[in-house]
Amino acid sequence: MSSVDHERAGFIGRGWRWLKGSIVKLRDKVVEVARKTKKLGQDDPRRIIHSLKAGLAVSLVSLLYYFKPLYGGFGVSTMYAVLTVVVVFEFSVGATLGRGLNRGLATMLAGALGLGAHYLANLPGRTGQPILLVLFVFLLAAAVSFVRFFPKMKARYDYGLLIFMLTFCLVSITGYQDKEVLDLAHKRLSTILIGSATAVFVSICICPVWAGDDLHKLVSGNVEKLGNFLEGFAGEYFKVPGDGESRDNKTFLQGYRSILTSKNSEDSLTNFARWEPRHGRFRFRHPWKQYQKIGSLTRQCAYHIEALIIYPYPDIEASAEIQRQIQDACTKMSTESGKALKELASAIKSMTKPSSVNTHIVNSKTAAKALKFLLKTSSCEDFVLLEVMPTAMVAAQLEEVITCVEKIAESVHELASLAHFKDAKPEQKPALGQPQQLQQTMQQFSGIEGPHHIITINGSSAVLPEVPIQECGTVVHVTNTDIIKGSKAKTNVREMRQYLSF
Amino acid sequence: MSSVDHERAGFIGRGWRWLKGSIVKLRDKVVEVARKTKKLGQDDPRRIIHSLKAGLAVSLVSLLYYFKPLYGGFGVSTMYAVLTVVVVFEFSVGATLGRGLNRGLATMLAGALGLGAHYLANLPGRTGQPILLVLFVFLLAAAVSFVRFFPKMKARYDYGLLIFMLTFCLVSITGYQDKEVLDLAHKRLSTILIGSATAVFVSICICPVWAGDDLHKLVSGNVEKLGNFLEGFAGEYFKVPGDGESRDNKTFLQGYRSILTSKNSEDSLTNFARWEPRHGRFRFRHPWKQYQKIGSLTRQCAYHIEALIIYPYPDIEASAEIQRQIQDACTKMSTESGKALKELASAIKSMTKPSSVNTHIVNSKTAAKALKFLLKTSSCEDFVLLEVMPTAMVAAQLEEVITCVEKIAESVHELASLAHFKDAKPEQKPALGQPQQLQQTMQQFSGIEGPHHIITINGSSAVLPEVPIQECGTVVHVTNTDIIKGSKAKTNVREMRQYLSF
Repeated sequence: MSSVDHERAGFIGRGWRWLKGSIVKLRDKVVEVARKTKKLGQDDPRRIIHSLKAGLAVSLVSLLYYFKPLYGGFGVSTMYAVLTVVVVFEFSVGATLGRGLNRGLATMLAGALGLGAHYLANLPGRTGQPILLVLFVFLLAAAVSFVRFFPKMKARYDYGLLIFMLTFCLVSITGYQDKEVLDLAHKRLSTILIGSATAVFVSICICPVWAGDDLHKLVSGNVEKLGNFLEGFAGEYFKVPGDGESRDNKTFLQGYRSILTSKNSEDSLTNFARWEPRHGRFRFRHPWKQYQKIGSLTRQCAYHIEALIIYPYPDIEASAEIQRQIQDACTKMSTESGKALKELASAIKSMTKPSSVNTHIVNSKTAAKALKFLLKTSSCEDFVLLEVMPTAMVAAQLEEVITCVEKIAESVHELASLAHFKDAKPEQKPALGQPQQLQQTMQQFSGIEGPHHIITINGSSAVLPEVPIQECGTVVHVTNTDIIKGSKAKTNVREMRQYLSF
Repeated sequence: MSSVDHERAGFIGRGWRWLKGSIVKLRDKVVEVARKTKKLGQDDPRRIIHSLKAGLAVSLVSLLYYFKPLYGGFGVSTMYAVLTVVVVFEFSVGATLGRGLNRGLATMLAGALGLGAHYLANLPGRTGQPILLVLFVFLLAAAVSFVRFFPKMKARYDYGLLIFMLTFCLVSITGYQDKEVLDLAHKRLSTILIGSATAVFVSICICPVWAGDDLHKLVSGNVEKLGNFLEGFAGEYFKVPGDGESRDNKTFLQGYRSILTSKNSEDSLTNFARWEPRHGRFRFRHPWKQYQKIGSLTRQCAYHIEALIIYPYPDIEASAEIQRQIQDACTKMSTESGKALKELASAIKSMTKPSSVNTHIVNSKTAAKALKFLLKTSSCEDFVLLEVMPTAMVAAQLEEVITCVEKIAESVHELASLAHFKDAKPEQKPALGQPQQLQQTMQQFSGIEGPHHIITINGSSAVLPEVPIQECGTVVHVTNTDIIKGSKAKTNVREMRQYLSF
């Protein structure tokens, strides 16, 4: 073989390898895109339906071109119908309606204003007209551009403002060239109306996607996620790992994370939902804003959980008795507030007034109070600060979580009254002030059996065990009688007040 | 006066009151809108300039109508120039360029594809054509609607996809009616080009707003805000309030809060910045994605701060010696990490490589280690757990903050190398492993004067004071010699390892 042949063979070989490599890369790319497409469709099959609906809406309005009587009437303006459908058709009914109304109203208003501007500009005569018109266009475009910076206008009317500016410019300026402006305006408005109507019709009549429904599900789902997390948290967190189990496996803790970034979806869904008519269980003026409020409180709670799970797992083997007691209290706090949240979520879902939520909240608050009392009074002879710390920190964060849960409950109650939720079974009386339950709780967390006395300070009740309360270094024997009469008791009464106001 | 007169007088009176009330309401509304407008303008004067620029761009392109030679050539297609300017002109150069390119490319591609579809549909003859065309439109609209669900496509090409769908439908269908389709396509493309060019010209040449600049400032500003917060935090938090000062006044803590919700701005600015050409200190392919990474780490840090400031102010009067020591450590940790962040922020701002950041980070980590050691070994005879808790919790959160700061520093270093930042003065050697400094720190936080011995386990160094280390209940005398030889020492070595791995 000559060197030229060699060179040629080498060239062909390189070319072949390059081609093979490219084909493999292309195949990988295609496979990846196919996988992503499948995932997108599986995650929310409504996406596929939406795409088919969009195709249908555009095809329907395209047919206008083939109806000679209509096309003859509208002429080239027919394209505005197609344009409108393409631009207006959105995923949810609310978004479609919002864009359709924005487009229709803005076109009408701007058209009228444009004609007015054109008429005004004609007054001073043929030379002044172009100057006046350009001045009008400048002023209006500048003003509308500025109005688009207002957050409220941006959220609801941004598209309308754009169309307003567009139509005003087109009508006022082309008016100068075209004398048949009224006829044109009429045709455009009609075609835009037809396009909007087609989009809204397809959007509502074929598998409608209601933004309000989505918002309702998103918010109640988020509350439920938090509830699930809190219910399972303490059990998982304080569990002694079995064989082969890793303590580093925090995947069970990840469910709530999507809440941290749900603000945008909530905001846009609220905006869309406000355009929607009565549907399903929702009235026209359903209090959608209240969902935003609940959503932001839920997110606040998720921030605390984000801070909660950073604490390292406590060293169970090295645990002292007090650690076990704190853990019991934490488990109670977290489980009860989890139950309260799940109850709230199911109340939102079924649109009934929440019933036993307050009981759960009061239970968790009682556990928190008992814990605070325990920490304040227990001796620290048998534990090292650093060992108890993680557990105690979890307890402190859980207290914050409970405060959040209370606020969420409040705003769900507000929603229930605003949206006229159905009555469920009558609400149980809160457990605070029920001596029997408080007795049990105190017994559970103080680990002290036997009778407890209940004293009342400023109308709130608390339970004190008839046993020594130890403080670091010294041991102070206090009974409830002491508290009421003794001089040492004054301090204790102050402490009790602090504990009660907690 | 007759009863009719009375009635009439009452009616007039009511009418007058209603009118007065309405006028007052209207006046209040106008005043409020004026106030908001002024605030919008003052917050960012570029908004006013942008509005004027938008007005100018639209006016400029309107002039096309008055140039007879041009208008004669383009005819009604002139309106596409106006339409393009209105739709394409955005606040930043990047956004304007992105929309302009999207619009231009999508129109061209869709136009060509539409013509192809039209040609294909003509093949089977006059009856098959409308059916085929509507089928094409349906398929393309459905496909493009689905592609818009891909997050990456949505972020960068959403507008282009919309225009693509729009143009394809218009060209393929109107092609059926209009034989001069090539001429029309040429006119439309030219006017769209003129419109886009006008928008881009005005956007770049008159007071340009670069999205990249904004992103750069936003991210470095957020890092600086965190730094300011951390530098001032400990001082404010542990300060004993003077006369007339309220401890509940947490306004100084609010500066960082805007970081929590800055994700959206960062994401959209990054998308816009990627369209921008070389400007100022930024190359065409500046690593904008890295800013997103720094931004998300900053937000992570802000979440921890959000969790940090929920702890109640510690009760300074009741503070024990250990509390003062923990507070000193916290102050050091927070101040040093604050300094590190401010150094990073100014490095990003001046686009130089950060120099003394590592020293600050190592200082704060040393303080954290000393604190952990203190907590692990100190006796708890003279404090109540609940009193030390808030301070100890602040310490734990600060540890997390330091971890975050370290990650931020890493990604800023990465940015510096990706974007070829200028060299500053050479970086100082990290202080870890500098026995002198560690000695001082240990002395400062353990409160124990005198010589400390340094032992080395697995290559890391630590300092142990030559004094009794007390554990709760029992007192264990440990010297560094014990640690190295004794049997009791084994446990302590394990503990030391834990402490060192912390």
